[in-house]
Amino acid sequence: MKDKVTIVKVGGAVVEDEAQLNQLLNDFTAIEGPKILVHGGGRRATKMAERLGIETKMVDGRRITDADMLEVVTMVYGGLVNKNVVARLQALGINAIGLTGADANIILSAKRPLKNDIDYGFVGDVKKTDGTKLSSLIGAGLTPVIAPLTHDGQGHMLNTNADTMASETAKGMAAVGYDVTLIFAFEKPGVLRDANDDNSVIATINRSDFEAYKADGTISGGMLPKIENALVAVDAGVKRVVITQATAIDGRHGTSIVSC
Amino acid sequence: MKDKVTIVKVGGAVVEDEAQLNQLLNDFTAIEGPKILVHGGGRRATKMAERLGIETKMVDGRRITDADMLEVVTMVYGGLVNKNVVARLQALGINAIGLTGADANIILSAKRPLKNDIDYGFVGDVKKTDGTKLSSLIGAGLTPVIAPLTHDGQGHMLNTNADTMASETAKGMAAVGYDVTLIFAFEKPGVLRDANDDNSVIATINRSDFEAYKADGTISGGMLPKIENALVAVDAGVKRVVITQATAIDGRHGTSIVSC
Repeated sequence: MKDKVTIVKVGGAVVEDEAQLNQLLNDFTAIEGPKILVHGGGRRATKMAERLGIETKMVDGRRITDADMLEVVTMVYGGLVNKNVVARLQALGINAIGLTGADANIILSAKRPLKNDIDYGFVGDVKKTDGTKLSSLIGAGLTPVIAPLTHDGQGHMLNTNADTMASETAKGMAAVGYDVTLIFAFEKPGVLRDANDDNSVIATINRSDFEAYKADGTISGGMLPKIENALVAVDAGVKRVVITQATAIDGRHGTSIVSC
Repeated sequence: MKDKVTIVKVGGAVVEDEAQLNQLLNDFTAIEGPKILVHGGGRRATKMAERLGIETKMVDGRRITDADMLEVVTMVYGGLVNKNVVARLQALGINAIGLTGADANIILSAKRPLKNDIDYGFVGDVKKTDGTKLSSLIGAGLTPVIAPLTHDGQGHMLNTNADTMASETAKGMAAVGYDVTLIFAFEKPGVLRDANDDNSVIATINRSDFEAYKADGTISGGMLPKIENALVAVDAGVKRVVITQATAIDGRHGTSIVSC
């Protein structure tokens, strides 16, 4: 039987709220077996940039990362958010280790080329995740806590979307033989049929459901890339992907993204 | 025969200068066998604090770390400086992994009590270094890059002097059986008999030499705690401690601090 690993991705809104973060970390601690936490921190980065007089530019919900903004996200994601999460998990008895893609060379990326004439700046598209190295850290009794930063192998840090980090980590672990459950934790109870009705959670979505929901407008906006990431992970051998509320990460709630 | 490990501590002045950092990292890469880099970053933290409108308060060369300053050092040491050093070492073919004391619980500390009525704030005095965990990371082919931050085991990061981090790391590695060489790299070619003459390097200093140099004023100021840290490490079983210029970290230059 394959070893199990649970990967939880939690966004900035939860990480930056003391009460929500505490509950999330308690719930994460309660998950049995090997696990990995992937976090965001975008709102905190935006606030820090503002304090430093650096303008935040977004295109289609994606941050444009110029040299100044790269400094901010490297500090905020890799330092402030990551180390505080690690220290809190240590206090809960979890031997956490904070990582970016550069650490132990776990996630290598390449600077994104221009897309539709848009220069996203120092943003990294993932090229390779080293599941073997993550596996050896887990084998040493450690719980990786991953910040949404990668490196290009040429000495530069790059900013990478946290959902992408989570699905790439899941794919990397599946590739080295793990039975992977990937949980995207966010503010809603799952993918909703009606955005205004929290009781309208769609239980399961496969690729053809997704195309249909996209075509009829049921699913739109920021949920599209999240489900796209989930489907890519499922197609790459990740056993279960769940999109759920940050207060319900036990894997028994939310929307399951499935292969067929 | 014991396994060898070389620990190099490099201060903020070198880390924050592109040309000096590049040479230091090249020289560090050339050191044979397992190695650990411990870095500072105080000047960069002071600059970042200034940009954020946070006043830097120092007492006897030690930073007072209030809650705002703790955020700054956590960001700057744990994120900005640490991750850029890690990415650069990766580019040089060194599989570096950035760590604070909280990561893998390698260095546990306790918040410093009032000293002579001075409240240093969120500053950690080291209680315990886990040489076993560092050893297992090294055994996995990784090169730890350690930022001057620790944690209290209760969920809080603490600011810890980088020289202290280096000597505590050296002591922790000696305690689990390593043959440890600890190199303090700084801007001078060693401990000088005459502060104005770079050719007056003192070749070796033991405890009684140190007391004599301290009494007659040959050694003073910031060099005192550095040598004190070095002697504590030697007394705790660290085989060799060298204080040398950042451009000469091959262990064949500078001042050797010896047990007798």
